[in-house]
Amino acid sequence: MAEQTCLFCKIVAGAIPAAKLFEDDRAVAFGDINPQAPTHALVIPRAHVASLNEASAEDEALLGHLLVVAARVAREAGHSEGGFRTVINTGADAGQSVFHVHVHVLGGRRLTWPPG
Amino acid sequence: MAEQTCLFCKIVAGAIPAAKLFEDDRAVAFGDINPQAPTHALVIPRAHVASLNEASAEDEALLGHLLVVAARVAREAGHSEGGFRTVINTGADAGQSVFHVHVHVLGGRRLTWPPG
Repeated sequence: MAEQTCLFCKIVAGAIPAAKLFEDDRAVAFGDINPQAPTHALVIPRAHVASLNEASAEDEALLGHLLVVAARVAREAGHSEGGFRTVINTGADAGQSVFHVHVHVLGGRRLTWPPG
Repeated sequence: MAEQTCLFCKIVAGAIPAAKLFEDDRAVAFGDINPQAPTHALVIPRAHVASLNEASAEDEALLGHLLVVAARVAREAGHSEGGFRTVINTGADAGQSVFHVHVHVLGGRRLTWPPG
């Protein structure tokens, strides 16, 4: 089962520690271990969804919740006014490294274009 | 009213033409006018939401729908296997240029890190 080997499922379960920034019944947010901006958080669902390729209509409310939590994390870090970028990588071309959907939240510096 | 001056509301209304890749009752997808990858689409809600800063819990299903449509656009462009990146810019630091929420979908090349 993915849940037994998935790094982010282990963080959700508390089996691996993480500096949590926010959590509720559906999502957990914590700092990226390799930050690319003054604020660089990850927002993940408690439920295991491997990637956007596996997401279906029934996951839409959960996925949208991740984005609203991302905005909350950015706001609490002081980036509502300056701004922030949210990024989801799907598959190898995008560099997805953990196959449990996660929203990157980057803020605290000017972000350039293109986004990678 | 934002809807009368907003570029993306005008695209939704058909007042400004766009090469639509997908549309349904809640979302419209079309090619970015300044593409940064072989595939570079934008997915927007028909309803006007300025940015993630203005999104609330009642917008979650709609926001998640944009992500599922993004994955569909990527799949139809042939990027399910290779991968794709979805990006939402909020505010000036992230370079948000149109204040109507839009999901960038980039695919068809190796995307680098950091994401801008």
